[in-house]
Amino acid sequence: MREKRVDKKLLSSIKGYENRQAYVSPFAFQPEGTMEEGKTLKDCVRRCKVLETIEEAVKKTGLKNGMTISFHHHFRDGDKVLPMVMNVLAKMGFKDLRVAASSFTAAHECMVEHIENGVVNRIESSGVRGKLAEAISNGILASPAVIRSHGGRARAIVEGDLKIDVAFLGVPSSDCMGNANGVVGKSVCGSLGYAMVDARYAEKVILITDCLVDYPNNPISIPQTDVDFVVKVDEIGDSEGIMSGATRFTKNPKEILIAKNAVKAMTASGYFTDGFSMQTGSGGAALAVTRFIKEEMLKRNIKCSYALGGITAAFAELLEEGLVKEIFDVQDFDLGGVESLTKNPGHKEISADFYASPFNKSAAVNKLDFVVLSALEIDRDFNVNVISGSNGVIRAASGGHSDAAACAKMSIIVAPLLRGRLPIVIDRVTTIVTPGETVDVLVTELGITVNPLREDLKTNFKKAGIELIEMDELIERAKFLTGESEAIEFSDEVVAVVEYRDGSVIDVIKKVKQ
Amino acid sequence: MREKRVDKKLLSSIKGYENRQAYVSPFAFQPEGTMEEGKTLKDCVRRCKVLETIEEAVKKTGLKNGMTISFHHHFRDGDKVLPMVMNVLAKMGFKDLRVAASSFTAAHECMVEHIENGVVNRIESSGVRGKLAEAISNGILASPAVIRSHGGRARAIVEGDLKIDVAFLGVPSSDCMGNANGVVGKSVCGSLGYAMVDARYAEKVILITDCLVDYPNNPISIPQTDVDFVVKVDEIGDSEGIMSGATRFTKNPKEILIAKNAVKAMTASGYFTDGFSMQTGSGGAALAVTRFIKEEMLKRNIKCSYALGGITAAFAELLEEGLVKEIFDVQDFDLGGVESLTKNPGHKEISADFYASPFNKSAAVNKLDFVVLSALEIDRDFNVNVISGSNGVIRAASGGHSDAAACAKMSIIVAPLLRGRLPIVIDRVTTIVTPGETVDVLVTELGITVNPLREDLKTNFKKAGIELIEMDELIERAKFLTGESEAIEFSDEVVAVVEYRDGSVIDVIKKVKQ
Repeated sequence: MREKRVDKKLLSSIKGYENRQAYVSPFAFQPEGTMEEGKTLKDCVRRCKVLETIEEAVKKTGLKNGMTISFHHHFRDGDKVLPMVMNVLAKMGFKDLRVAASSFTAAHECMVEHIENGVVNRIESSGVRGKLAEAISNGILASPAVIRSHGGRARAIVEGDLKIDVAFLGVPSSDCMGNANGVVGKSVCGSLGYAMVDARYAEKVILITDCLVDYPNNPISIPQTDVDFVVKVDEIGDSEGIMSGATRFTKNPKEILIAKNAVKAMTASGYFTDGFSMQTGSGGAALAVTRFIKEEMLKRNIKCSYALGGITAAFAELLEEGLVKEIFDVQDFDLGGVESLTKNPGHKEISADFYASPFNKSAAVNKLDFVVLSALEIDRDFNVNVISGSNGVIRAASGGHSDAAACAKMSIIVAPLLRGRLPIVIDRVTTIVTPGETVDVLVTELGITVNPLREDLKTNFKKAGIELIEMDELIERAKFLTGESEAIEFSDEVVAVVEYRDGSVIDVIKKVKQ
Repeated sequence: MREKRVDKKLLSSIKGYENRQAYVSPFAFQPEGTMEEGKTLKDCVRRCKVLETIEEAVKKTGLKNGMTISFHHHFRDGDKVLPMVMNVLAKMGFKDLRVAASSFTAAHECMVEHIENGVVNRIESSGVRGKLAEAISNGILASPAVIRSHGGRARAIVEGDLKIDVAFLGVPSSDCMGNANGVVGKSVCGSLGYAMVDARYAEKVILITDCLVDYPNNPISIPQTDVDFVVKVDEIGDSEGIMSGATRFTKNPKEILIAKNAVKAMTASGYFTDGFSMQTGSGGAALAVTRFIKEEMLKRNIKCSYALGGITAAFAELLEEGLVKEIFDVQDFDLGGVESLTKNPGHKEISADFYASPFNKSAAVNKLDFVVLSALEIDRDFNVNVISGSNGVIRAASGGHSDAAACAKMSIIVAPLLRGRLPIVIDRVTTIVTPGETVDVLVTELGITVNPLREDLKTNFKKAGIELIEMDELIERAKFLTGESEAIEFSDEVVAVVEYRDGSVIDVIKKVKQ
């Protein structure tokens, strides 16, 4: 613009504009990284974000030792992105990184080596499994690992408790600008719900894909407005790896009995009315609940307004039959779930923030009537452990457990009294992930046990002619069958901190004495 | 939780957790407004945001004198929400409010009265029309109005330059938690692209709807995670009011000639290849461009990757015929656009941030090959005025004009040499909204004029045998036909500040001497 109309003098005469800048040129004030270096003005506009290698992208982000990087776990056991990226970072000589994955799975055992070699010194996640979990329990980290629920992780990222410097997000497809989704491509994973939060809030975002599509990609789960770079690699993951636990109908008579008891509790609760909502996890008993509740819905001619959580083919079937109006999908647990997300307009991909963050203006869990959750242990006060084994060693994941339990009108724990020779219903859980006051009902193969805080539910159940079994009796029976458990001996060293969804610390995990 | 496992002493022993809180109870640390007051724990979870009246909602937001409120203009001339809300706020006795609407239309003349009565003392918007515009030009405001482009407004909101305390967003449908869209309901407006940014960043968000639907609403344009309250009223707007300018094919021979010249420029530019992208506005010449470009696409068997901008039935037709792969829709200009958004999977609703913000990691305008834009005036340096009339009085809107012009590989201004007896191509525009260095080509009924900065385009046009007309000659011709224009006499009082998309000040509008 040859003729400048605005100068400092003019600006200083306008109230509120005294310290503002006059126009200089079209891209004079662009933030770093949003433009290309071009010969002409029109060459300055960034039109492609694709780089050749992960290393090149890492360099361009300015990643430094001690910074925080993140990953998602939508490929679960089939993930190839975290090992690939960590390998590059190790070769580049990075040290002291904090790795905040939405969860660590069996595909992430390489982390042990990276911790040993000093590439990584901190871990924050919803879950830790396998050798990495054992190593953490054995004190491999100098600072304790941080365990958060899915809603708590979203909250921590949004609030800035967990500031991500560079997010490395594997995406089944992306265009050259970074519009990405999990349903197109050769390695699909379905919903990118956890990754959406990282993409939105990380300082720098690198997408890693094995399928570059023409611009613009469709649908758009992660938008170009969040993405810095796109790197194409040979393979990001194995779609089969997303299957989590049993996805076929269980034949285990104990699981079927527990599921039937859970459905009895649901139908008698007073909440099983037209438009009710529910979340159930994967696994034998939970899947069986989905099947039996369908029979009850048909019998009473009522429909479910929305189903939530990790999504399986069983829910997709309910959606397609018109028994569920909407599915809110933060993560898919089988390829039937992925397929439904691809084709059913009522099947909606949601972010972890929308799913369960306690600090936005209301998450999807807030409207839940029922949630059916599993447990590694549950105790006299209805506290639930889903993170550590009865030997005190970390082995699983916080997930959305405490998020859904806090908000659902009736949270139901389905668990057997024993697993093998281990008692599940016990005096005192090894680690508290979900506080007892948010757990309403425990369902075992012996029947329904109601939290004393929920006298209203007890009344409803009794009205329905359901015989209840008290917590004390359950614990006695478990003890009778297994004998008193030996107390685990812990050292004083805290190896992991368990945050509640609001960021307060609900428990710690200590190093097991060996 | 009876047994507390974590206390201050324990926390103080964990590195990095010295100042953290121990868990207290499930909702102990919830932010204000996210819970209900309930007798039992499960009653605390907020399950409905619907309030009876706008007044009640306003009270709950804590709105105070001097604060900033916002509105969107998706209903354009048919909007009933702004007048309704302003009336309530006036009755409640509010003073000195700053009103940041995405645009002010003919439906918003009531604003003059609210300024006169002291309810409103500041205005920020993309456009101002009619009596409000005249009143501002006549100095009704103590502080100058702020004019921003659509991309610039999104940037200002995201960056915090424009901090919105309470957003009042009219939505054609919402459920009880605030999941809202513009395509379901009795008063549809299509895309809610501008409103999405307000919803995301405003401190408090009140949705105003005339159609409450069962939870969950589908699709979700504004999510429940952003919404504080929902109020149902009788009518939020008149869908017919969204029509902007001509939406039928023009019979004006001058407009047809301009459109043909524009298409000639597009096809000869070197950018008209398979996968090209474009934005055209509404209005006779622009719509005619859409029709003629279709003929060229069919002739050469090439397709458009994406079309952008205010969307009309003409674009929807191209999408349905497979000539356009995707539509990115920030706003609908006719009911044909709305209908297409409702039914076509390739028709995507986008936010104003995704559309055009200069400061995110790349907006949709960044991939544009062509944009066809109109002008109130264009000058020797290719600077364009789309905000004030030749009499110096504010009358129109900045819109996405400067956003698209900056980023498109070829920005085309379509304008007649004269409108009635007013010259359009002149020595010096009254107000600069879009700087000349971002304008590549001017197309009038006399032919194609290329910005001297674009020698590359000149070469391509000449190769294609196109005779060009120089800017000097255009201005001479206009002067010959209309005579020298009389200079407008302005006072020194600045009545409006025109921000460029990056927040720098590109021009000011002064009070006209009377």
